This record gives sequence, structure tokens and C-alpha cells, in this order.
Amino acid sequence: MPEKLLEPNRAPEPISLLVTLDKHYVPQLLVLLTSIYLNNPGEEFQLYLMHNNLPKACRQRIAVCCRKFGYSFYPIAVPDELFQQAPTNSRYPKEMYYRLLAAQLLPEQLERILYLDPDTLVINPLRPLWQTDMQGELFAAAAHVGKTDLTKNVNKIRLKTPTDYYNSGVLLLNLSLGRQEIVPAEVFRFVEEHEKTLLLPDQDVLNAMYGRRIVPLEDVIWNYDARNYGTYMLRSEGLCDINWVLKHTAILHFCGKAKPWKPHYIYRFGALYLHYMQLAERMLNA
Amino acid sequence: MPEKLLEPNRAPEPISLLVTLDKHYVPQLLVLLTSIYLNNPGEEFQLYLMHNNLPKACRQRIAVCCRKFGYSFYPIAVPDELFQQAPTNSRYPKEMYYRLLAAQLLPEQLERILYLDPDTLVINPLRPLWQTDMQGELFAAAAHVGKTDLTKNVNKIRLKTPTDYYNSGVLLLNLSLGRQEIVPAEVFRFVEEHEKTLLLPDQDVLNAMYGRRIVPLEDVIWNYDARNYGTYMLRSEGLCDINWVLKHTAILHFCGKAKPWKPHYIYRFGALYLHYMQLAERMLNA
Repeated sequence: MPEKLLEPNRAPEPISLLVTLDKHYVPQLLVLLTSIYLNNPGEEFQLYLMHNNLPKACRQRIAVCCRKFGYSFYPIAVPDELFQQAPTNSRYPKEMYYRLLAAQLLPEQLERILYLDPDTLVINPLRPLWQTDMQGELFAAAAHVGKTDLTKNVNKIRLKTPTDYYNSGVLLLNLSLGRQEIVPAEVFRFVEEHEKTLLLPDQDVLNAMYGRRIVPLEDVIWNYDARNYGTYMLRSEGLCDINWVLKHTAILHFCGKAKPWKPHYIYRFGALYLHYMQLAERMLNA
Repeated sequence: MPEKLLEPNRAPEPISLLVTLDKHYVPQLLVLLTSIYLNNPGEEFQLYLMHNNLPKACRQRIAVCCRKFGYSFYPIAVPDELFQQAPTNSRYPKEMYYRLLAAQLLPEQLERILYLDPDTLVINPLRPLWQTDMQGELFAAAAHVGKTDLTKNVNKIRLKTPTDYYNSGVLLLNLSLGRQEIVPAEVFRFVEEHEKTLLLPDQDVLNAMYGRRIVPLEDVIWNYDARNYGTYMLRSEGLCDINWVLKHTAILHFCGKAKPWKPHYIYRFGALYLHYMQLAERMLNA
């Protein structure tokens, strides 16, 4: 009989993951979970899903996937009433607050949690990220460095923040501290006052309100913009070539409009994503 | 506890694999075996390795890998004396005969075996190939269709065969029939007589001697030349795009001089191969 290859001796402390999504992103979440499973042998995960009326069939598909992988699954239906005082509309749906207010919405025993966008793919172990020293800050996140520093500077001016513009797609949350320091009413007030200048609501609020309270992560390892291979190569003077990326990068982020599961995706990591779609389908329908 | 995800109910009949390699290709074999394991849940494999003085440490690495995957492993040291009458030199090493004479060299109870070059990667299940109807022929193989039919026609003339020029990197062998019909002395005589026109010894002999006894396989599924994405697209009038390939192609063949594990590999499936190198290293060193 084969050894239990993907479940050797488990590490003592499980890694807690947070996702928030609507029904359209369930297939991508299953691909992400498959990639986490195959690239984190020996790890135990618990998945928290914060949602608003996600259909039962969707929750069940996620539950079945977690059971197959041996992960605990905690769906949390976030009641609308919590956001009665919050400015929401089609551009600012209430889901935009889930990440920022996770400390208030999640069980008290959780000290930290790793939020991942469902358009990410994990290709190496997450434990080093999980064990990041939070240095007394509220979040850890990576700034996406674009082809020039132009975007970064525009965002700095727009949001009146001296820090880098952090991407909120991979976010390690210090929940213990967040319970003390993040005040929902302040977040709601900020959105109300800045309604006209916010472009990407949750990410903008994160940067404007908490930009100084973020431990910076290396984007090339923890939040690799899958469209920007050339930029990373250039920035690293050739170090971060394809060999380096596949060996060291842990999280590929398929951000932006082009998606590898949609037609005509042209970027380099598309085949890898499609292969994980196939692995996920095969493993979950076996 | 997680379900045994990659080892659900096993299929009744194991799939027998044949590889022949020297010590330089052991890392690639481990990557190939990892890809077979992850993409063939529920399957049992038995691996036959025909070799000539492969160092013990290499055989042990392969044995450890097979044990982890639950595969039986049968290393077969092929004695030099068998090839005393065979023309061999640096261009025609005796290993070139292993594939052709497998019926004579392997245990009698084996009825068929699937030979794979170690520069292949399996990304979908192999069972449909394993169950190919041999139609009373000796081999099943795929012809690589190049950008034009020029190469094919040159090879037809060179080897005086009216059939397609088959690639010998993925080869299903009808051993029962081979024991009756393949005569080692005839193979040796053919090589002796054609020494000057043979370019790729084993592949040329396969085509020239047995070209008419080969069941043709679809190369786009069973022996996809990883350099030729554009050709497959063109030939299929756009059907075999990247989505199609990741869903249907079972064996990617990294043939030719450029290899994804060497620097400066430029073709599309390089990242996928490198990721499997990483998966193999992680799973086998866990």
C-alpha cells in the first residue's frame, strides 16, 4: 500500500484561510484549494468562508472539497444588519467590508488568518507566510510593482498616503490586534467621506486607512502578478526567471481583467492554471 | 482524517510501464513518475526498468519513489552478452535494442507494456492508451506531424517505407505477439546492413522494420510534441488550443534538443514541467 504521501505527519498548528466570494467564483475556489492541497503536504488547513446568501449547493460543493482534503470548513453567513450604517451600493457592495472587518466577524479564538482572493493559485508552501512576524501591525500585504512607479505614485497622491499601494488579494490579518484597533464605524465613515475618490473600494480603504499599519511582503513570492513576468525579470536583473519563480513563488495572482479560465488568455502561467482546473475536476469528482 | 484521495478504489488490472535510461535521466524519470501519480488516481502501476549497469544509488532513488507511490518496481539488468552479435558502437549503443527486444527481455507473463521516454510528462489518465486495441499488430505509436510534410516524406524515402514516420518515445508494445514475431538476429542484421543510413537508430529501425505493424495513435493526445503548439493549432483549425490540450492531451513529449529543465527553454509548457520538478522534489523528499 502506498504511504500517505500528501498527509505525512501533520504540523502542530493549522493554517486558517479566509475567502469571501459569490457563486460565480466557486469553481476558482475549488482550483485554489486543490493547489493548496497539492503544494502543502503535511499541513492542516481550516477554511473560513464569509458570504452573503451564497446558495446552499455552492456551500455544499466547497464542503465536499474540504472533506476530501481533510480541511475543516466554517461557512459564516454575514447578516445584512451589520451593515445598516454602512454606505453600500452596486459599486460598494457590503462584501467589500468583510476583509476589513474580519476581526469583528470571525470567532474570537482566531489570532490571525490568511485571506486569499479566489483568482490566486498556490504553487509552493504557505507556512512561511503564515508565520510572518506581524511586528505589532494589523496586516501583511504586498505592493504590486508595475512597469514604472507611475501607478504607485498616482495612487499615493490620490489616497494621500506616503506608503506603497498594497494589493488586498493576499492579506495576512492580525485578528487579535484588529479586534482592539479596527472600529467599524470609522471604516463606514471613511467610505462615506471619500465616496468620490475610491476606485477599488476595499483595496483603497485598506491603503488609505491602514497603509501605515501593513507589514510589507515580497510580491514576487507571496502575490506574484501573473501578467508581469517581464517586469519581475527586469526588476530582479534576471534573477527571477521562470526557474526561480516555479521554485520560490508561492502565490500566483491572476489579477486584472484577463483570466486564465476565460478564452484568449495570453500570459505565461495560463497552462499551469488550466492544468490545476483539470486536477481539481479529477480529484473532486473521483 | 482526509480520504485517501489519490488512492481510491484501485482498478483491477495494473498498468505496466517500461523505461530504459542511464544515470543522467534519473531526475527526469522521477518527475515523470510524479506526473503519472498525480494524474492517474486509482490506478496501480508496475514499473520495469531495463538498464545496463545503472548505479545502485540511482536504482534506489527510483525504488524509493515507486514505494512512495505504491508502484511495484522491477529493475532488469540486461546482460551485455545478449548483444554479442549485435552491431554496437558509440552511435548505436546496445540500449537502442532494449525497446525493440522488450518481448524477449521481459518476463513471460507480461502481455503488453507501455514504454515512455523519460522526457515525457503525463498530464491526464493513461488508461485509454493502455487499453488500445492492438489489432494484431506489434506496436502502437504516434507520428509527429511537423510544420510541413517535408520531414515525413524525406524519412519515407530514406527508410523506404510507405508509412508515417513514427516517434518511438511513446510506444505500446504487444509483447505476446512480439515473442512470436520479433527475431533479435533479424534486428541485428538490419542494423548491420543499414548502418550508413540510420540517423536515430532505435526509431529508424522501428519504422523501417515494423512501420507496417504499428497501430497509429493520435500524437496530439498521446505524444504531443511540446515545441509544436502552433502546428497543432493550425492543423486542428484552432480546435486544439491551450484549453483543449490541458483537458485532453495525456502525454507531453519534450523532445528535441531544447529541454525545459535546461536554461533558456522558450516553449509554452516549460512552466508546467518546472512545477512538476518542484512537486516531485517536495513529494519525494517529504
